[in-house]
Amino acid sequence: MPKHKYAVLLAGGQGSRFWPQSRTLEPKQFLSFFKDSSLFGQTVSRIKHLIPAKNIFVVTSELYRHQILEFTAPFKIPPANIIFEPEPKNTAPSIGLAARLISILDPEAMICVFPCDHRIKNKVRLHRLLNKAIAVCQDNIVIFGIPPSRPATGYGYIKAQKRKISAKAQKRGVLKVEKFLEKPDPGTARKLVKSGGYFWNSGIFIGSCRVFLEEIKKRLPGFSRQLLKIKGPADIKSIWGKVRPVSFDYGVLEKSKSILMLKADGLGWSDLGSWQAWDEELKKDKSGNALKADVISIGSKNTTVLGYNRLIAAIGLEDIIVVDTPDALLITRKGKSEQVKKVVDILKEKRRQEYYTHKAVKRPWGGYTVLDTGCGFKVKLVEIKPGHSLSLQFHKKRSEHWVVVEGKAVVIKARKRYTLSANESTYIPCGCAHRLMNPCAQPLKIIEVQSGGYLEEDDIVRIKDDYGRSR
Amino acid sequence: MPKHKYAVLLAGGQGSRFWPQSRTLEPKQFLSFFKDSSLFGQTVSRIKHLIPAKNIFVVTSELYRHQILEFTAPFKIPPANIIFEPEPKNTAPSIGLAARLISILDPEAMICVFPCDHRIKNKVRLHRLLNKAIAVCQDNIVIFGIPPSRPATGYGYIKAQKRKISAKAQKRGVLKVEKFLEKPDPGTARKLVKSGGYFWNSGIFIGSCRVFLEEIKKRLPGFSRQLLKIKGPADIKSIWGKVRPVSFDYGVLEKSKSILMLKADGLGWSDLGSWQAWDEELKKDKSGNALKADVISIGSKNTTVLGYNRLIAAIGLEDIIVVDTPDALLITRKGKSEQVKKVVDILKEKRRQEYYTHKAVKRPWGGYTVLDTGCGFKVKLVEIKPGHSLSLQFHKKRSEHWVVVEGKAVVIKARKRYTLSANESTYIPCGCAHRLMNPCAQPLKIIEVQSGGYLEEDDIVRIKDDYGRSR
Repeated sequence: MPKHKYAVLLAGGQGSRFWPQSRTLEPKQFLSFFKDSSLFGQTVSRIKHLIPAKNIFVVTSELYRHQILEFTAPFKIPPANIIFEPEPKNTAPSIGLAARLISILDPEAMICVFPCDHRIKNKVRLHRLLNKAIAVCQDNIVIFGIPPSRPATGYGYIKAQKRKISAKAQKRGVLKVEKFLEKPDPGTARKLVKSGGYFWNSGIFIGSCRVFLEEIKKRLPGFSRQLLKIKGPADIKSIWGKVRPVSFDYGVLEKSKSILMLKADGLGWSDLGSWQAWDEELKKDKSGNALKADVISIGSKNTTVLGYNRLIAAIGLEDIIVVDTPDALLITRKGKSEQVKKVVDILKEKRRQEYYTHKAVKRPWGGYTVLDTGCGFKVKLVEIKPGHSLSLQFHKKRSEHWVVVEGKAVVIKARKRYTLSANESTYIPCGCAHRLMNPCAQPLKIIEVQSGGYLEEDDIVRIKDDYGRSR
Repeated sequence: MPKHKYAVLLAGGQGSRFWPQSRTLEPKQFLSFFKDSSLFGQTVSRIKHLIPAKNIFVVTSELYRHQILEFTAPFKIPPANIIFEPEPKNTAPSIGLAARLISILDPEAMICVFPCDHRIKNKVRLHRLLNKAIAVCQDNIVIFGIPPSRPATGYGYIKAQKRKISAKAQKRGVLKVEKFLEKPDPGTARKLVKSGGYFWNSGIFIGSCRVFLEEIKKRLPGFSRQLLKIKGPADIKSIWGKVRPVSFDYGVLEKSKSILMLKADGLGWSDLGSWQAWDEELKKDKSGNALKADVISIGSKNTTVLGYNRLIAAIGLEDIIVVDTPDALLITRKGKSEQVKKVVDILKEKRRQEYYTHKAVKRPWGGYTVLDTGCGFKVKLVEIKPGHSLSLQFHKKRSEHWVVVEGKAVVIKARKRYTLSANESTYIPCGCAHRLMNPCAQPLKIIEVQSGGYLEEDDIVRIKDDYGRSR
């Protein structure tokens, strides 16, 4: 039985509600809140003693290919277990795809589906609840229902009841789901919480692949037919264009009659669905402030500041959240923090850089930060991870000056190969094929001064690349 | 008579209430609020048609030598008219010093003393009032009193009355000062404004040098004796250590019996004494917002944002002022903005960089911005003004890589002289004497990558310098 136990981690979300910390290309699940590790890493850490790494599957977007490979490697999750969606289609397609691929490998598989961007403080309790759920889910999907601690308006609610459930199941805290409710208004939320019998929808689902696929067949027959065409990961691309985006909750669960709910109390759970939800998890000082930055506060109350290395003076503020990043600053009243989504929509529409990436841009070989740009020049700090290389490439419209400031570089320039140490420099003329490599065990840092009339990222002709990137 | 008319501009203030826009080395009077020109420049522009440039004197601190020479040059104010105080001692010593030096040049001089960091919208009205004041000030100091428009707590008040003043003087709007009141609490301020007969102290004083010096002799006899030792600017240093800091208001005016006040209405005056005072002068949109930055506002009201080139999202804010700069951010409730002084005090005590300068540091030859620092390296954008040169210098602990990105540089390196154009680079080894010059009419910009174990500004040995700076 344990050998049939699998995890499906949903790691394709864009988490725009954590802008400006999250960006489309660096979403919430890869941010490190509360601990040194990412929310994704925390999710894996919570289940790795219950489910072996070879049975952990991750569904994510092509956009996050290099990040997810980096984040899964420390846990020895096989790269073949990463399922890449050509584009995001919400959770029903993600779960269906994982269930289909896992069921081909193991028709008896039992899957536990987890979001990767939630917080759960009590790991022991999680394990106990997962084992309970697995014990009762032979013919049903079991969903974790969180007993509400306040009339939250940011969650979906589940109405559950004892009817038609065996005494054994009831004893295990299992209830029958009567219906799902969308995010309520404040008045309704108060009523729901007061009346009892309502729970928050955690997004954690447990069941056999067989049952998941049967439910999908009943509720989303078109998608189910597409799924049956898939014999392996290589087939995903051919069907994905025909898949309609829909959430698993809306597309499957809400229409199904046979969903069970496990009362999941004592988890210390939060979906971290907004800056306010994150803020509620923080420890406060005696003025109600949480100042996670270089802050001078004069008479501020109930104010939270998340900064980086810049000084912030907060005078007389109340109920404010400040999130500072190198290129974008958010200042929001606490009760309004969900409206950051509107900001992100505006940025998306305007195709602004702040929508896509941070100022420090990640690449499979490391990353770079633009330090300055001016008329005809751009200055970057380029960091190359140990053992990695940029592609063999040339530029049509710019020259580059490199100064090594940390580590040791091997440079290929017009077929010559040489080594540069810190405080040594070289010049790459426009049109000259070149490559920058870090053969050492330490990071390599160079300052790159680009010079030319056109300095955008798309002026790059790749001749050879370690990461499968073409032009 | 017009040839005896002089202006004394007090330009030595540190203006800490405008932090983070102002810094100790870049104070308020040199900031450009409301117009393209600095507050200092606006002050000169207001009086230049009334008082010839050769009669305009400026009292400032040694700290601001290079800035004041730069800001006075366009007005053709003779450099000999700039009076440098070795250290700031508040306004009484500044005014006394100017009166003494001017009276040596012209014993019949009549001086108009102006702060350089206030706003006055109506220049024509100012000229009319100045001429009135000059006409009645033979034996008195005349102070401009502003009719209060609201019960402000940030100003000193003057109680004035008609008693013992000639009918002619009264007709000209001149009153006798009965007493001065320090900044009142809100209740007192309301009473003062309601009762009438109280005016704001503008800090604008008019009188003959003779009367100024006589008043100083009566009220500050010790300082007066020191002043008499001064025969010219070269003598300032020898007496300055013995001068006690005191404001002209407290040290002289408040104790004097013969001060007149001219009712100075219609000036459109503000002392810009705080961010809130600045904010009150701004035009607002229909939500009461003034968004002088790259701002996305969602439901914010009565909120003012002053930014630079970084995106700021403001959600649900009310009565907030945000001032963003590259290295420091201020967020303050409007009514609390005067408390920025407390922030500045903390920064001063901690000797933090953000107290002294901006991230973009000004130098007589131009300036530099630190783009990045890391272990063993520092990256700067260095900008050299047309026709200027850095000193001939060497460093004991660092090497430098220079890449010219704009303009043309003449480099002296170990007694060799050569030219570098954009997209050309050079290397200055540790210990090698070098000089960077911009002989052209365009600005020169270089990217400097420093490399070494110690990279502070004090590792510089100057061999030759155009600006009188030694090591």
